[in-house]
Amino acid sequence: MFSLQPKPIGLPPGALVHTGLQKSSEVSLTLIDYDAEHLLVKEQVSLEDCIPLKETDSVSWINLSGLHDIDQLQKLGDSFDIHNLALEDVLNTGHPPKCEEFETYVLLIFKLLHINDQTGGLEQEQISMVVGPSWLLTFQEKPEDIFDRLRDRINRANGRIRQRGTDYLAYAILDSVVDSYFHVLAHLGERLETMEAKLLIDPDSQSLQDIHKLRQELTLLRRSVWPLQIAISEFQQIESPLLNEGTAPFLRDLLDHISHAVESVEMMRDGSSNLLDLYLSLSSQKMNETMKVLTIMASIFIPLTFIAGIYGMNFENMPELKLAWGYPTVWFVMIGCAVGMIWYFRRKKWF
Amino acid sequence: MFSLQPKPIGLPPGALVHTGLQKSSEVSLTLIDYDAEHLLVKEQVSLEDCIPLKETDSVSWINLSGLHDIDQLQKLGDSFDIHNLALEDVLNTGHPPKCEEFETYVLLIFKLLHINDQTGGLEQEQISMVVGPSWLLTFQEKPEDIFDRLRDRINRANGRIRQRGTDYLAYAILDSVVDSYFHVLAHLGERLETMEAKLLIDPDSQSLQDIHKLRQELTLLRRSVWPLQIAISEFQQIESPLLNEGTAPFLRDLLDHISHAVESVEMMRDGSSNLLDLYLSLSSQKMNETMKVLTIMASIFIPLTFIAGIYGMNFENMPELKLAWGYPTVWFVMIGCAVGMIWYFRRKKWF
Amino acid sequence: MFSLQPKPIGLPPGALVHTGLQKSSEVSLTLIDYDAEHLLVKEQVSLEDCIPLKETDSVSWINLSGLHDIDQLQKLGDSFDIHNLALEDVLNTGHPPKCEEFETYVLLIFKLLHINDQTGGLEQEQISMVVGPSWLLTFQEKPEDIFDRLRDRINRANGRIRQRGTDYLAYAILDSVVDSYFHVLAHLGERLETMEAKLLIDPDSQSLQDIHKLRQELTLLRRSVWPLQIAISEFQQIESPLLNEGTAPFLRDLLDHISHAVESVEMMRDGSSNLLDLYLSLSSQKMNETMKVLTIMASIFIPLTFIAGIYGMNFENMPELKLAWGYPTVWFVMIGCAVGMIWYFRRKKWF
Amino acid sequence: MFSLQPKPIGLPPGALVHTGLQKSSEVSLTLIDYDAEHLLVKEQVSLEDCIPLKETDSVSWINLSGLHDIDQLQKLGDSFDIHNLALEDVLNTGHPPKCEEFETYVLLIFKLLHINDQTGGLEQEQISMVVGPSWLLTFQEKPEDIFDRLRDRINRANGRIRQRGTDYLAYAILDSVVDSYFHVLAHLGERLETMEAKLLIDPDSQSLQDIHKLRQELTLLRRSVWPLQIAISEFQQIESPLLNEGTAPFLRDLLDHISHAVESVEMMRDGSSNLLDLYLSLSSQKMNETMKVLTIMASIFIPLTFIAGIYGMNFENMPELKLAWGYPTVWFVMIGCAVGMIWYFRRKKWF
Amino acid sequence: MFSLQPKPIGLPPGALVHTGLQKSSEVSLTLIDYDAEHLLVKEQVSLEDCIPLKETDSVSWINLSGLHDIDQLQKLGDSFDIHNLALEDVLNTGHPPKCEEFETYVLLIFKLLHINDQTGGLEQEQISMVVGPSWLLTFQEKPEDIFDRLRDRINRANGRIRQRGTDYLAYAILDSVVDSYFHVLAHLGERLETMEAKLLIDPDSQSLQDIHKLRQELTLLRRSVWPLQIAISEFQQIESPLLNEGTAPFLRDLLDHISHAVESVEMMRDGSSNLLDLYLSLSSQKMNETMKVLTIMASIFIPLTFIAGIYGMNFENMPELKLAWGYPTVWFVMIGCAVGMIWYFRRKKWF
Repeated sequence: MFSLQPKPIGLPPGALVHTGLQKSSEVSLTLIDYDAEHLLVKEQVSLEDCIPLKETDSVSWINLSGLHDIDQLQKLGDSFDIHNLALEDVLNTGHPPKCEEFETYVLLIFKLLHINDQTGGLEQEQISMVVGPSWLLTFQEKPEDIFDRLRDRINRANGRIRQRGTDYLAYAILDSVVDSYFHVLAHLGERLETMEAKLLIDPDSQSLQDIHKLRQELTLLRRSVWPLQIAISEFQQIESPLLNEGTAPFLRDLLDHISHAVESVEMMRDGSSNLLDLYLSLSSQKMNETMKVLTIMASIFIPLTFIAGIYGMNFENMPELKLAWGYPTVWFVMIGCAVGMIWYFRRKKWF
Repeated sequence: MFSLQPKPIGLPPGALVHTGLQKSSEVSLTLIDYDAEHLLVKEQVSLEDCIPLKETDSVSWINLSGLHDIDQLQKLGDSFDIHNLALEDVLNTGHPPKCEEFETYVLLIFKLLHINDQTGGLEQEQISMVVGPSWLLTFQEKPEDIFDRLRDRINRANGRIRQRGTDYLAYAILDSVVDSYFHVLAHLGERLETMEAKLLIDPDSQSLQDIHKLRQELTLLRRSVWPLQIAISEFQQIESPLLNEGTAPFLRDLLDHISHAVESVEMMRDGSSNLLDLYLSLSSQKMNETMKVLTIMASIFIPLTFIAGIYGMNFENMPELKLAWGYPTVWFVMIGCAVGMIWYFRRKKWF
Repeated sequence: MFSLQPKPIGLPPGALVHTGLQKSSEVSLTLIDYDAEHLLVKEQVSLEDCIPLKETDSVSWINLSGLHDIDQLQKLGDSFDIHNLALEDVLNTGHPPKCEEFETYVLLIFKLLHINDQTGGLEQEQISMVVGPSWLLTFQEKPEDIFDRLRDRINRANGRIRQRGTDYLAYAILDSVVDSYFHVLAHLGERLETMEAKLLIDPDSQSLQDIHKLRQELTLLRRSVWPLQIAISEFQQIESPLLNEGTAPFLRDLLDHISHAVESVEMMRDGSSNLLDLYLSLSSQKMNETMKVLTIMASIFIPLTFIAGIYGMNFENMPELKLAWGYPTVWFVMIGCAVGMIWYFRRKKWF
Repeated sequence: MFSLQPKPIGLPPGALVHTGLQKSSEVSLTLIDYDAEHLLVKEQVSLEDCIPLKETDSVSWINLSGLHDIDQLQKLGDSFDIHNLALEDVLNTGHPPKCEEFETYVLLIFKLLHINDQTGGLEQEQISMVVGPSWLLTFQEKPEDIFDRLRDRINRANGRIRQRGTDYLAYAILDSVVDSYFHVLAHLGERLETMEAKLLIDPDSQSLQDIHKLRQELTLLRRSVWPLQIAISEFQQIESPLLNEGTAPFLRDLLDHISHAVESVEMMRDGSSNLLDLYLSLSSQKMNETMKVLTIMASIFIPLTFIAGIYGMNFENMPELKLAWGYPTVWFVMIGCAVGMIWYFRRKKWF
Repeated sequence: MFSLQPKPIGLPPGALVHTGLQKSSEVSLTLIDYDAEHLLVKEQVSLEDCIPLKETDSVSWINLSGLHDIDQLQKLGDSFDIHNLALEDVLNTGHPPKCEEFETYVLLIFKLLHINDQTGGLEQEQISMVVGPSWLLTFQEKPEDIFDRLRDRINRANGRIRQRGTDYLAYAILDSVVDSYFHVLAHLGERLETMEAKLLIDPDSQSLQDIHKLRQELTLLRRSVWPLQIAISEFQQIESPLLNEGTAPFLRDLLDHISHAVESVEMMRDGSSNLLDLYLSLSSQKMNETMKVLTIMASIFIPLTFIAGIYGMNFENMPELKLAWGYPTVWFVMIGCAVGMIWYFRRKKWF
């Protein structure tokens, strides 16, 4: 989670190096070209097919899945006049979410989050998006079904998406991503509530590791959500012909959603801190009880054992030993001691 | 408390889905139409009755109770030209309080809080309010008597409310809601003081759970109160013909009240943290005392038992055993040991 | 301390209800009317005596002590054209300090703090002040000698106060209040230092409750001082003919004093948190020492008792028992064990 | 440290009262008058000697050491037209550092800090400075050698100081004070590092008190350094003929130095908090080890003692006692028990 | 880490004193003079060789390695008209990173960080950079290979660097430094993850010191990274002919990188705090388990030993001792006791 893959020292700025893990074995380009009337969807296209679409008025969405083929990325970048510094950020898969305006396009970097079904752990993938006047490039580490659903919406030709430009497409992609955050949040919230319920019944050592893991995942989540809020806010405020007026209420709504996500993350962080406090308090209280059991047992029986020890001594001159009522008396004294101790602990409300 | 009900992934923005729990079995529309001279109150109206009132100058307050009938909500929204993004927020019952200005109306979302009489727990219900030029729509999850009291005030025709427009009605609704927060705050404050008094007398394990529950409720409360303060502040600063000048001092007063509520929540959060610190300190102190009892008992009796053990040995050649004053001497030594220990612990101020 | 007295639900805004405790049995009006030449002081005046003074150029200071007579308050408010929302705040004795500008007057609410001589606890009383062009109204829950001293200063006719208007009188009242805060702060600071000194010598369970009480009082103090700083800052920045230029340096000085008070409160809060940390650390350290005593005693004597137990067994075939040097050898072994243990603990620097 | 000396209640604003401790027995005036060509230094001057210099163009630096002679202070103030509110602040030796602009002069209050060589404790003294057009007054509680070194610099006539006006002199005084803070910081930093090294080797109870003392001194230091940063920043931004353009880079440099000091204080506060965390963790870990020793000793020997106790019973019918191999068997069993326990604790990695 | 080397008290501002440790034995000047066509690299040059290059249009980068030769530094400063206050900052090797604009040049101070290969500790070296119109001076405490790699890039004449001015060279130096931070961050992140993995398996006392060391290094890192972010932001915003427009996107990218570094430091600080919390919780939990073992052992065997002690008493009149089934009955009772205790602890889920 804290691992960074810095690029080698001494490289000039803008030198392209793929530093993350290679998450997908193949690199594939997908192209969708549409306007209100026509629609063209092509998978596994070559770069040459995409370039002519740059100049048309229809919206061309080119998605590159797999980042380790640097040559192809460089060519794609050059074809669309993308600054090498922007491509460098696309390749740095540990980059925090951001929005940066360039002369003719806007670069948006954000994280896709999902819960791994096997491990239950939180995983993230970086998505970069370059929004141009009539084209939009997306870069992802491996293919994700979140884009398939968007493609379906474009296919079905209902909804506003076909009537609108690249800014609305960018909004639609961001909106899907933010919506997916709420599913992650719902999952974590559920776990938090389960853990809390379990903790109040039986706080065991597993609880501690669960809380720790949740706290780390919330840190990771926060790291994706906070800067995205800032990036969306900057995207919304860009004064550029790229952004049509009609998209403004949608971006405002998006910002509202991401604030909600941020606020939920903060509340869960609060909640998980409270849980740790609760764990520590419950643990200290259990220890207190353990101590009490030990102290009660020891305080009652140690004096009695001492009394028994006295009359186990072998002195010749121990007159008590010869008394007929010596043994019953000792029992009486011992029972008296025990009752006194019990009464003392009762008064102290120890049990 | 941390549970979110995200809408299904892949829906286009503005798609209406009811994600919360269905809190009320029936959906009912209530209509109040009034100006200084006339008053019309109708319960269980149909939507068709309401629409013509949109154009009149009199204030029309339409309240929709129950959110699961999405068709009716959609129709109501369409009749009053409410943007679908606004309706989406109305349906998302986990939405944080907010104020959003649209072209001809303002959307306000806030939470109604009350203490459940049975469980003593804090419950919240979302209320959405759309303030138009001569109409005001409210949406609630289930019928609440807070609105009944307002209707009574309108009925009685005293007070300013009948002379004024929708902005004053919106203010009156918000004011009732904020006033009701103080009752929740008073309840929690009382519980906090009770818990503190109890803690200083007898800190038991129940206290810990009580503190934890209170802290969670304060987190929930804060989540309702903080963003509402921001929302009211934004509502107050809206530059729109919707807001008459005469309403300004009332909104300023409302903002003052909600700040007071925010400040009280923060103080109680401080107070509950102090309480947890106190609990932990008291608990550590009690453990210390338990430890002292054990140490004193063990330190006094273990050496004595050892001495008794010595003279319980069966060596043939133990000259002390045959001495006439052997047994009294051992008693003397043992009492000396015990007194020494007690003196030592006294000097350490252990008891 | 956390108790709020919310007014009943459903009342229209501006409805006057006295919600606090009734601290004084009687309601009394006091009037002081002065300018550089003349001075008029009247106690127990009727409202009718006061009203004509509203229009004169001389400064008229009317003080109402006791807030439970709502009728009189309402009449007084009406005579001086005070907005009902302002009167509502005057009656809400749990209102945080604030400054609010109305059309022809300014409302200031603040708290008077003093240490109860009997209980040593911190008590607060709300004072409200309405500053008009030639009149100044003050409302207090019960009569306080802080006002008597001011009246003396006005009486003595020395000082600037008789030459100046209501703004200087308002300043003089606020200045007296802020000065009185330093006496409370000095008292709390002294207690803090005493507690710290005591803690380092003998941290007992009373210390904990003392620290807790101090922390609560500092929270209460902070709640009075912080918003007053903001209120005074707002009062200073009001652009109104009410404020003469000559009063500006005095208000700046007042703001400087209240900042000093705020800063002292924050430092004491820091100090009290440090004290709690110190208490917990000292407590943990004492427990450590208790544990060491127990462990040393048990570790030395339990093995010895075991050895004694061995030779207390009654087996017929125990050849050691018959050896002449058996008994001294056992003593030798036992002393060896004890010395070994003591050496071990010494090396661990346990004592 | 937390002690405040509030002035008596009820005094009018601007009334001069000396509230601090009297740190010096005598009051003395020192006068330095210089420009590029001439220099006049007079110790123990009378006030009358100083007044004519007010009007000359040469820089006149008048230093008053000892604040308890209020008459002289008042006279001095009157001669240079100092506002009584300013003199009140000069006398309040607990005043936080500040910069306040008056019509023809600027008042600066700051603290001189030094480590007491005997006690090793941090001590502070208040210095007030009134910067006029051609004169500069300083007020100190007792004579300090920091001023002597400045006088030497003026005497030696090298350096820029003789060519420049009162603003540069004020800068030079502030610069000396800020430089002296770094010596205090270096001392505290060294102590912090020593304490840390000691803590890792042998955390004893003295450590705790040392950490607590350091934390308090850092709180005190922070209270001197933070507001001084603000004061210097305000002094720098004053738009007044008092400040020559040529002094600007020096003031900027001074601000840079004080920021460095502020940053160092914050880092040390962090460091001292980490140290307390470390102490608590180490303490908890030592207790854990103590507990382990106790548990190992008790768990090994208590069962053995029980076995020995069994065969110490005096029942007539105990067949084992008569068996020839009974005694060795018991030894065998006991050694087996002990080895089992040791193996168990080893597997738990307890030692 | 907290050690400061303040310069002696009483020195006039701008007096040059070398206060840090002397990290390199020799002082050497290196000169690189280049433009798009020509390149001149000279090591161990004399100051006189450098001065004429000041006026040429080609970029002259003069690097001074070793700061203890104050005379040479002063001469270098005088030749390039560097203000003495700037040189003072260059010599103060404990100065926090900053950017300060002077009339014709900009001073930038920053830290080079690297992990010491032997000790694994974090070390820092101060680098100062003075950016002039056609010359750039760098000052370092000892020679670093980070500069060698830059020289190689200039040598190779590829990349933009030879076409651009001093601002791009300054950017390239800063970019190398910020890139090197990520290597330090990656190292610390790795250590953090290793420590966390180890902690969950076996939290020992070494862990605590490791966490403490990491926290201190993060504090040190933060102290280098935070102010550098501000310095770069200020450098970027300087309105001066020194900065060409073409460099702006590179500086923006640099600012983006340093924000990423800042964010990573903050996340690691969070992570290390979580680790300490985890350590404390695990430690408290282990203690709880130790206590349970002790309590179980003691509670089972102490009563049994007492029973054995009873029948070890030597009273003549103990009828049980003579009963044939006395001994088996005692065994029965003792086993019953033990089973009861075990059942009780099982029900409490202690093992």
